[in-house]
Amino acid sequence: MTTTSQPAAAVTALLDQARRDYAALTSQGLALDLTRGKPSLAQLDMAAELLQLPADRYRAADGTDCRNYGPPKKGLRELREIFAPVLQVPVEQLVAVGNSSLELMHDCLVHMLLSVVPGAERRWADQDVAFLAPVPGYDRHFALCERFGIEMIPVPMTADGPDMDIVEDLVRSHPKIKGIWCVPKYSNPDGACYSDETARRLATMETAAPDFRIFWDNAYPVHHLTEEEVEVADILTACTEAGHPDRTFVFGSTSKITMAGAGVAFFGSSPANVDWWISNAGIRSIGPDKVNQLRHALFLGDTDGLRAHMRRHRDILRPKFDTVRRIFARELEGSGLATWSDPKGGYFIALSVLKGCARDVVRLAKEAGIAVTPAGATYPYRSDPEDSVIRIGPTYPSLEELEQIAQGLTVCVRLAGYEKLAAEQN
Amino acid sequence: MTTTSQPAAAVTALLDQARRDYAALTSQGLALDLTRGKPSLAQLDMAAELLQLPADRYRAADGTDCRNYGPPKKGLRELREIFAPVLQVPVEQLVAVGNSSLELMHDCLVHMLLSVVPGAERRWADQDVAFLAPVPGYDRHFALCERFGIEMIPVPMTADGPDMDIVEDLVRSHPKIKGIWCVPKYSNPDGACYSDETARRLATMETAAPDFRIFWDNAYPVHHLTEEEVEVADILTACTEAGHPDRTFVFGSTSKITMAGAGVAFFGSSPANVDWWISNAGIRSIGPDKVNQLRHALFLGDTDGLRAHMRRHRDILRPKFDTVRRIFARELEGSGLATWSDPKGGYFIALSVLKGCARDVVRLAKEAGIAVTPAGATYPYRSDPEDSVIRIGPTYPSLEELEQIAQGLTVCVRLAGYEKLAAEQN
Repeated sequence: MTTTSQPAAAVTALLDQARRDYAALTSQGLALDLTRGKPSLAQLDMAAELLQLPADRYRAADGTDCRNYGPPKKGLRELREIFAPVLQVPVEQLVAVGNSSLELMHDCLVHMLLSVVPGAERRWADQDVAFLAPVPGYDRHFALCERFGIEMIPVPMTADGPDMDIVEDLVRSHPKIKGIWCVPKYSNPDGACYSDETARRLATMETAAPDFRIFWDNAYPVHHLTEEEVEVADILTACTEAGHPDRTFVFGSTSKITMAGAGVAFFGSSPANVDWWISNAGIRSIGPDKVNQLRHALFLGDTDGLRAHMRRHRDILRPKFDTVRRIFARELEGSGLATWSDPKGGYFIALSVLKGCARDVVRLAKEAGIAVTPAGATYPYRSDPEDSVIRIGPTYPSLEELEQIAQGLTVCVRLAGYEKLAAEQN
Repeated sequence: MTTTSQPAAAVTALLDQARRDYAALTSQGLALDLTRGKPSLAQLDMAAELLQLPADRYRAADGTDCRNYGPPKKGLRELREIFAPVLQVPVEQLVAVGNSSLELMHDCLVHMLLSVVPGAERRWADQDVAFLAPVPGYDRHFALCERFGIEMIPVPMTADGPDMDIVEDLVRSHPKIKGIWCVPKYSNPDGACYSDETARRLATMETAAPDFRIFWDNAYPVHHLTEEEVEVADILTACTEAGHPDRTFVFGSTSKITMAGAGVAFFGSSPANVDWWISNAGIRSIGPDKVNQLRHALFLGDTDGLRAHMRRHRDILRPKFDTVRRIFARELEGSGLATWSDPKGGYFIALSVLKGCARDVVRLAKEAGIAVTPAGATYPYRSDPEDSVIRIGPTYPSLEELEQIAQGLTVCVRLAGYEKLAAEQN
């Protein structure tokens, strides 16, 4: 955001109006929350059938008794077949396990820290390790790095993904840079989709670290908000064709498809990486919850069933995103105080306010009873150098609540913004 | 086992008979498996209701929507209340998470390797770490240590638990010894139950390592095979009273209560350890599968319901253990070739054959179509120095199969045993 120059008197008047509006806002006694990207009750209700599945079934297609210990080590094939085309991973290289892709990313880091990943000379626990963190990004990715003492190096996002000139330069020069966080489609929080060229450059770039990994967190592969269903490049194939078959770990889950807390997660990669994963995961656990995998396979049916289910999600979510954007436009367009993203999918809108104002906006909103993700959360170490980006998660509140939230937020944006402009003019 | 001295002619005759019996055994073309402690289909069927639960419910007692992300961080209170008395952990100090206690043990090791556990000066990844491994013991405990390069020091089991004279001496002298594996009740594989005195000594002993941990794997707390329901000491309270409140991690799960692959696991410890656990686990995951916890709470009802359910398991399992022991007694008693345990609970019988014969017995059984847990599996690094202990898991096969398996095994024990005796006499 750059500041629009306005006459001092105009700013004073606008600030006075914002102060009156904020006083009115706080008098409403709101208690609203848009801190996280949680599915709404209506979305969860769409998966109500899961609560009584698998009913009288307990055998997988291959005859496996899902109730007992035992194989298949990669999880139920019928579920992996549903998600293989969606995650762009061959079914033989796709593992279904656990109920959270975040857990799988954590465990991949753990296994790399404590055992030797294909291509590595030694375990990461004995080395300085750094990751590239495209910003703004997902706070839980950054929390994983911070927890393990992995240094994060921010790289700016563009509309086509991370700035690849910077990425290529960094990974070529620094052997300690061993990974990059990527949310390739409908990125958290700005909704950006990686272009084919970005994927190609990620797959082909020269890395100083022989054990470099792309953490390809395909969190929103079928989470479209418009009729245009964006496709991103097949990164595994691109890496293989570039001679770097082991470069990418693909992650996904049903968390925002069925039930956020009771879904199934997926890990996909090269055959060597999958073998490495299974050899480590097989010591941690006798096997995943296969009953939940069967439950999901029965509920979704096939990939077409999954896509149809996601269109019903879209019908619920689209009006929510539209509501927020409509109110932002009505209240802020032309003010020079903010811009906001127009995602074609995913779970978030990125709101960018005047430099130095994001923390103030979040504080003002909180004091008015609107809980927003802390400013800075989308940056490593919770530090947005511009103090500008606020992540908006419009999925959980009702349309009526979103009207209040969006309207209230714009009041806070105006108050913080005009206070800053007024201060600069004094 | 000590060898009974017998006249050479008698041994030759017994060996000839064993060879004829073994030839008859192999001619049967058996294909039977008792490698692991898996619940049988009849046991799993007892939990069939779980396959259609929670039906139309999705809210926990405190109103939590179990389908979505979010708290409670310790898992559903109503489920923790059912298991708190059974695992002897105050409900506030008991966490329900995941579907496998093995995963929780793995993750405790990971968190200690990569972050600083209460009482520690630095993370374990930068130190030489050793664990005491009471033997015979659980192969998957040993696999965890081996995977992380944690040295295992065997300590012999007694009828009252590990030999505490040896344990006390080792932990007092060696700061690198930072843990001990314990299955306190109906131990895997020998069925031993820790005496109150063993627990007291574990709680009070002086350890050179300030961050020493007892991994108290209470895998079979309600898994009784007789009318006598053995109780072991409350180790958490004992440790607290001894001034070592953070010494013990308690683990448990419903794997052998409801469904082996789709249950709920538990971690219990001191408040400081529970905080430590949650701070690490909360970075790994947004939360556990609460729907499965609700499912289990609804199915079990309360602690009495759990105990009643376990009596129905006992009714299924008791005849299986009796069958194996009856056939072992009929075929082997007085032979001097083997002894076997008489567990009052749990999942295993430990069969001890003549020194140097266990591998031969397992090989002979395999060649006759009977898959048995590899000899040595109950020792660190899969190496039984006596080559004597074989773990028998009688829970999964039917009674008819167990008759064949036990009978067949005794033939292999006789063949391997008399071959050894004959060789010694030559």
